[in-house]
Amino acid sequence: MTICIESVKALLFENDEFSVDTVDIYIRDDRIVKINRRENPAASEQTRAEYAPDRIIDGKFRLAIPGLVNSHTHAYMTMFRNKADDVPFTQWLFDTILPLEDAMSPQECYYGTLLANAEMIRTGTTSYIDMHLTPDSNARAATDSGLRVCLSRGLTGNDRKDEDALRRLKEAMHDHEHWCDNDMITTMLAPHAPYTCGPDYLEYIASYAKEHGFALNIHLAEGDDEMENIRKTYGMTPIEYADRAGVFDVRTVAAHCVHLSDSDMDILKEKKVHVAVNPISNMKLGNGFSPVPEMLEKGISVCIGTDGAASNNSLNLFREMTTEALIHKGLKKDTVCVRAADVLKMATIGGAAAMGREGELGRIEEGYKADIVLLDMRSPQLIPDGNLISALVYSCCGNEVDTVMVNGKILMENKELKTIDEEKLYYEMDRIGKRYDAIIRESAR
Amino acid sequence: MTICIESVKALLFENDEFSVDTVDIYIRDDRIVKINRRENPAASEQTRAEYAPDRIIDGKFRLAIPGLVNSHTHAYMTMFRNKADDVPFTQWLFDTILPLEDAMSPQECYYGTLLANAEMIRTGTTSYIDMHLTPDSNARAATDSGLRVCLSRGLTGNDRKDEDALRRLKEAMHDHEHWCDNDMITTMLAPHAPYTCGPDYLEYIASYAKEHGFALNIHLAEGDDEMENIRKTYGMTPIEYADRAGVFDVRTVAAHCVHLSDSDMDILKEKKVHVAVNPISNMKLGNGFSPVPEMLEKGISVCIGTDGAASNNSLNLFREMTTEALIHKGLKKDTVCVRAADVLKMATIGGAAAMGREGELGRIEEGYKADIVLLDMRSPQLIPDGNLISALVYSCCGNEVDTVMVNGKILMENKELKTIDEEKLYYEMDRIGKRYDAIIRESAR
Repeated sequence: MTICIESVKALLFENDEFSVDTVDIYIRDDRIVKINRRENPAASEQTRAEYAPDRIIDGKFRLAIPGLVNSHTHAYMTMFRNKADDVPFTQWLFDTILPLEDAMSPQECYYGTLLANAEMIRTGTTSYIDMHLTPDSNARAATDSGLRVCLSRGLTGNDRKDEDALRRLKEAMHDHEHWCDNDMITTMLAPHAPYTCGPDYLEYIASYAKEHGFALNIHLAEGDDEMENIRKTYGMTPIEYADRAGVFDVRTVAAHCVHLSDSDMDILKEKKVHVAVNPISNMKLGNGFSPVPEMLEKGISVCIGTDGAASNNSLNLFREMTTEALIHKGLKKDTVCVRAADVLKMATIGGAAAMGREGELGRIEEGYKADIVLLDMRSPQLIPDGNLISALVYSCCGNEVDTVMVNGKILMENKELKTIDEEKLYYEMDRIGKRYDAIIRESAR
Repeated sequence: MTICIESVKALLFENDEFSVDTVDIYIRDDRIVKINRRENPAASEQTRAEYAPDRIIDGKFRLAIPGLVNSHTHAYMTMFRNKADDVPFTQWLFDTILPLEDAMSPQECYYGTLLANAEMIRTGTTSYIDMHLTPDSNARAATDSGLRVCLSRGLTGNDRKDEDALRRLKEAMHDHEHWCDNDMITTMLAPHAPYTCGPDYLEYIASYAKEHGFALNIHLAEGDDEMENIRKTYGMTPIEYADRAGVFDVRTVAAHCVHLSDSDMDILKEKKVHVAVNPISNMKLGNGFSPVPEMLEKGISVCIGTDGAASNNSLNLFREMTTEALIHKGLKKDTVCVRAADVLKMATIGGAAAMGREGELGRIEEGYKADIVLLDMRSPQLIPDGNLISALVYSCCGNEVDTVMVNGKILMENKELKTIDEEKLYYEMDRIGKRYDAIIRESAR
């Protein structure tokens, strides 16, 4: 199957900079095989004849961007959306999130993840790094929806003799063995956080990852409690604690990284850690602001995620990009410290690198995977035509996305989802939501 | 004409709190005449018979909210959207905004305002307070689009003998005399800011307002430069400067108020000033964060605006509400300091008060004006059904709005605009955008 997106404005990345040009994009099976610049009509005709597309998508009034990468989320948590807000953190965690996580079934996780997938597709995300609790369900949902996912079962435990901890690792390996195809589904190991993984367990997971070729996904330096706790218990920062355990000896995605010393940042830079920032969740849970301008300055690889819907309460990366580009301007009183292009890079190229897929994902470029999002430019917030990189970050709210393709397959066209039956999904979620409301009422007694 | 929105979840406000209930809303001409609670089917039947609606709108899967009030914007500035971002403030102002304002024609202002109106309708805003530069154009656009507007021509000048300054006041009076109907169009006087209005001119405008029964609209305490400048020149804060000139002796909307001392806040409270915060613009231009938790604590009347599209770059109040509810949680590491209900109040009841229309606008309540927005709840970000006040602020991105009514007249239905020809508008804006690009290129030489 060959598709041509004809005469479309496209966000390209050349010489380390984004640019926009009107092009024809040829897609054969799962790859972008040709990008034709359209300067020369005769050459365009020749390219058309050469690639003989089976299908032509009209690019008029559309902007093609690389599919966005959500580098940190917990997809199943859409089930807990809008269930506990404007309450202290401990009340959020102990009275709502933990009781619900205890109660949830694998089938519910499937639907929760499918709902996350529907929201991600509708807002232009084509790949995501998922930290979850339930084997199979999350993989099944991503497979059914056609999104690209990096799965990581959350791992917690004291030491390598802890039987529950070993069961969790076994579940992670189950997902890896049954679902990983090294393309649409990949896997990482996910030691949850310094405060939930004892030194021996963390070392064990890190060495296991090194031995078996896994990357790692971990929450680090998210809140003040964690900083205090790790300092008191081990006399170091969470970054030092993870480094000491060998976590950074393999490719690692470190989520949050709100509280970083200068030497923490040096470690992250030296060990080529991918930092997944989550600005909305960090504000909503009262944790603060990750030092993105300083990390960019140091050349740390930064990507961006939404975190779970229970602390956001949306999985819309456009909203996340807008927020990230704005907050440091306010904090530093500096209008240029984080530019639109910086956050766009985090959400595309940075995310691809975090997934270990640099050179394959995150750009519209010949040879890259055909993960492409088309935006409808005839939306009032994008009129008149100005700097489109600014428009993507400062004007878009996500609903401009009208067509989404992953691996050359169309998941949404003209805002209609092709792989997910939304009516059935919403019906199931209504049922699940009601059950959870009853559980919350019970736990509040 | 009587309309019934049947069996709709509605955001109500009772006993100083928001609540959501399923109701029938009866609208006769421009007013909400009856809200029926639907507990008693027989009573519902009787109400139906009594009000005999000409038209029934199905409320299933919808949420009705009061139309939002954008308490501070410059609608014409949509024309400058995405034209200068990620540049220092002075470059933004002197190389882009001022040259374009010099060049713009009244007809361009009409289209720019109409574009603003299209974006506002699509994102649920039904009223706005507009500070503009061009008489007639802005009133014409609002009239054509059917939005409720409070017009205020920006006034700058040194003293009451300044001829240009008096011409501007004359233009403001022209708008008032030709357009004000005390309902759909009202007017205020808009002394621009402390740094653009000398003490004599400001006193003159304030006394003129008092004498002729006008409210005032002014930018105050927005940036560090202003703080420094007013302190150096007059030895006081911008709030004190405005207070001294008599600005607060009439109803005043003070936009921005980023930099406030405790005694400034006491003045704002005592003089019942309406503070219109603009969180996105304040970050984007590197000004900082308005102390909303402190103002709420003091009981100051706070409302919310988007500012102009040149410093936002959107007029979407949902985005503004989300941002306002989040930033202080991050700044104060306090998850409850600004609640969803607080910002929702700013965008509805607070805005109505700023417009001097408390008791008429900003609520879904019997006797209030029929400014009602319906949201499509079958959007993935609103599933499952949780706390709808949280959902409005933390999950919505604005595109859930599907039907908008102002003064009982439908301006958008099922996402189709009824009063604005978007195709023609976009065509005109393309033309205007190209002309402005040429002006910017010229001024950059």
